[in-house]
Amino acid sequence: MTLTNTDVTDHIMRLGEQAKAAARALGLASTDTKNAALIASAKALRESLPVLLAANDKDVQSVMGKKPDAFIDRLKLTPDRVEAMASALEQIAALPDPVGRKLAHFERPNGLNIERVAVPIGVIGMIYESRPNVGADASALCLKSGNAVILRGGSESRHSTEIIVEAMQRGLAEAGLPAHVVQAVGTTDRSAVKALLQADDYVDLVIPRGGRGLVELVANEAKVPTLLHLDGNCHSYVHHAADIDKAVKIITNAKLRRTGVCGATESIVIDRKIATVILPKLTDSLKGCELRGDAEAVSLEPRLTLATEEDWSTEYLDSIASVKLVENLDEALAFISKHSSGHTDAIITEDNEAARRFLLAIDSAVVMHNASTQFSDGGEFGMGAEIGIATGKMHARGPVGLEQLTSFKYLVHGTGQTRP
Amino acid sequence: MTLTNTDVTDHIMRLGEQAKAAARALGLASTDTKNAALIASAKALRESLPVLLAANDKDVQSVMGKKPDAFIDRLKLTPDRVEAMASALEQIAALPDPVGRKLAHFERPNGLNIERVAVPIGVIGMIYESRPNVGADASALCLKSGNAVILRGGSESRHSTEIIVEAMQRGLAEAGLPAHVVQAVGTTDRSAVKALLQADDYVDLVIPRGGRGLVELVANEAKVPTLLHLDGNCHSYVHHAADIDKAVKIITNAKLRRTGVCGATESIVIDRKIATVILPKLTDSLKGCELRGDAEAVSLEPRLTLATEEDWSTEYLDSIASVKLVENLDEALAFISKHSSGHTDAIITEDNEAARRFLLAIDSAVVMHNASTQFSDGGEFGMGAEIGIATGKMHARGPVGLEQLTSFKYLVHGTGQTRP
Repeated sequence: MTLTNTDVTDHIMRLGEQAKAAARALGLASTDTKNAALIASAKALRESLPVLLAANDKDVQSVMGKKPDAFIDRLKLTPDRVEAMASALEQIAALPDPVGRKLAHFERPNGLNIERVAVPIGVIGMIYESRPNVGADASALCLKSGNAVILRGGSESRHSTEIIVEAMQRGLAEAGLPAHVVQAVGTTDRSAVKALLQADDYVDLVIPRGGRGLVELVANEAKVPTLLHLDGNCHSYVHHAADIDKAVKIITNAKLRRTGVCGATESIVIDRKIATVILPKLTDSLKGCELRGDAEAVSLEPRLTLATEEDWSTEYLDSIASVKLVENLDEALAFISKHSSGHTDAIITEDNEAARRFLLAIDSAVVMHNASTQFSDGGEFGMGAEIGIATGKMHARGPVGLEQLTSFKYLVHGTGQTRP
Repeated sequence: MTLTNTDVTDHIMRLGEQAKAAARALGLASTDTKNAALIASAKALRESLPVLLAANDKDVQSVMGKKPDAFIDRLKLTPDRVEAMASALEQIAALPDPVGRKLAHFERPNGLNIERVAVPIGVIGMIYESRPNVGADASALCLKSGNAVILRGGSESRHSTEIIVEAMQRGLAEAGLPAHVVQAVGTTDRSAVKALLQADDYVDLVIPRGGRGLVELVANEAKVPTLLHLDGNCHSYVHHAADIDKAVKIITNAKLRRTGVCGATESIVIDRKIATVILPKLTDSLKGCELRGDAEAVSLEPRLTLATEEDWSTEYLDSIASVKLVENLDEALAFISKHSSGHTDAIITEDNEAARRFLLAIDSAVVMHNASTQFSDGGEFGMGAEIGIATGKMHARGPVGLEQLTSFKYLVHGTGQTRP
């Protein structure tokens, strides 16, 4: 559908009103009801397999030849991928309910009994790109945490998204919950994103998931609170007291396990004292990866190319890493503090005191000792699933799972107390 | 000082850089060092008494005859008020350190050991009006929670603020902490507020404290995250199963103990079934308070005046309350959900099941049963002190005390784990 700007704003406001009403009902639903909706949604998704694949084929055909292969691969659904989506819904049903947890409890001298209890946030706007499964995962995480969701997926995936939302809505209806718990923006009009970002009367939180352009747009335009990360410029620092073989193994994994994820190491920082020993081993192990070092590193290991100033703050998301030599822990802390994007940074050392100093001093969402930065992930943290990763310092930081999709309120139980 | 807009932006950025560097050092300081700084600041404040009173007199003289008496009373310092400020610093020193608390701890099957630990937020911008003690309290709460603060008090209090900041900086220096932990914007240029609200590279959080105009400005202009509340349109609902005398006593306190605080009840909601019994008693007890009721309430109790639609969403901050009759709990829930500003709402009833339904269904930061809404306060909650009250759902909700001035990070302890 094509709409004027006013139409788009009205449309988003209507979705917002519907979402708010649905969220109110969902917020009072029992865990069993929410789980029943998730399980019924999984079933509905499996039943819709032929329709979904046909819709997805329409999406794929419309961009064929116009978008890179990697884009089309992210967009494409197969029976296996649909099954994985359905089974993710069931896995989220099996996770503990984050709503209603008693976060704190205190009794005051005047007898007031005060509880801090987890409650849903309300209405969440989810803005993402071409992968249709992001819509299903996000809907399931929002539903389980008692939140209504408004999905705004990439316009290229609109036919697939429509079928996925219909399946979730059938699941919700079957459990007696309002269908408007899960809605899609519908229109592919770009002004809809802006309207969603400004709709602070209806939307409590926006989570963008995608490339830097999308996330930057959201960060700049949102009036609504957001949970997001712009960059994952992650560092692995090899301290002079590191076990060299362990360091090579960890960094190879941190850089090359998957180069396109935000927790991949982009910059390797090495103590000068051990550089001649580790550089050749690391270069061997990171075969196929371009290493861009400072002048000193290049002089020690000629397979390195010379880095420019820009490299120190670049998130490559590719088989490239920068290599910086430092004199000691203090210099490493200064360098990483200057260039880190606050996502994940690691130290590799057998010196526990040095590790402790690093973990305290580096101001990133996740700081690691002797482990691969690629562990920075909700699933790996045992959260069951994540809707994104946040690098801001308000509300949630690091992987955003079910608990992070809740707020809280204070319940005050009195017996007639008045304040002196 | 008078500055151009570019000058103001540069000035705020320089304060921001200094604050960020100071916050880094403070974040690593021990509890003892922070407490020593607070105690030394209290001493410095007492020593500065004559200078502070002289500066305050300059502030008071400059607005004499131009501002209402209540404004001048808020601005005015006396030896007793300065002593109260100093002793508040010592009380904050005595509170537990919110930094370093272990918020969660989990071990993964692969042996990764993950802790979630409270850390300071970083740099906090505090924007307030004429009361000089707000600057001292906020500085102390920020210092204790490991955050640097940039104060922007009302221009009328600038001489007082200058002396208070100097005293805090002497206290910081004495404890070996950087003076830039506490800074004042200095210039009274109004564009400084805007520059502070936009400085998201340096400022992690802005907290406004003051009248609706100030808070609205911050809510609309801030690029930086904020913790704030616009309105405190608080309700007290008398359920038909209430103990009438208890209800009268609670509501009299909730409305009249202090009418100018955000937790004061502004709207009284009453079940029709008990209206004839409670209305005369309530009107007697709330003497001096104007009661604006709906037509039915006015017909039952002629001392009431007729409310307009606007009254239901008005925060009077005065000896006025609106009175609404409802059929039952469901109607009360609908009415309060529609008009509440999400601050604090209370039910008065002896029926625990009705109370439970109310506490779950009302989506406000604080919900109460059989207690005065005026208890909605950090001190009354046992937080020791509060820097403000938040009605947003992200990060902190309700009273914002020391714990709410922290973020957290994940510390991941490995033994060489790589991700499969």
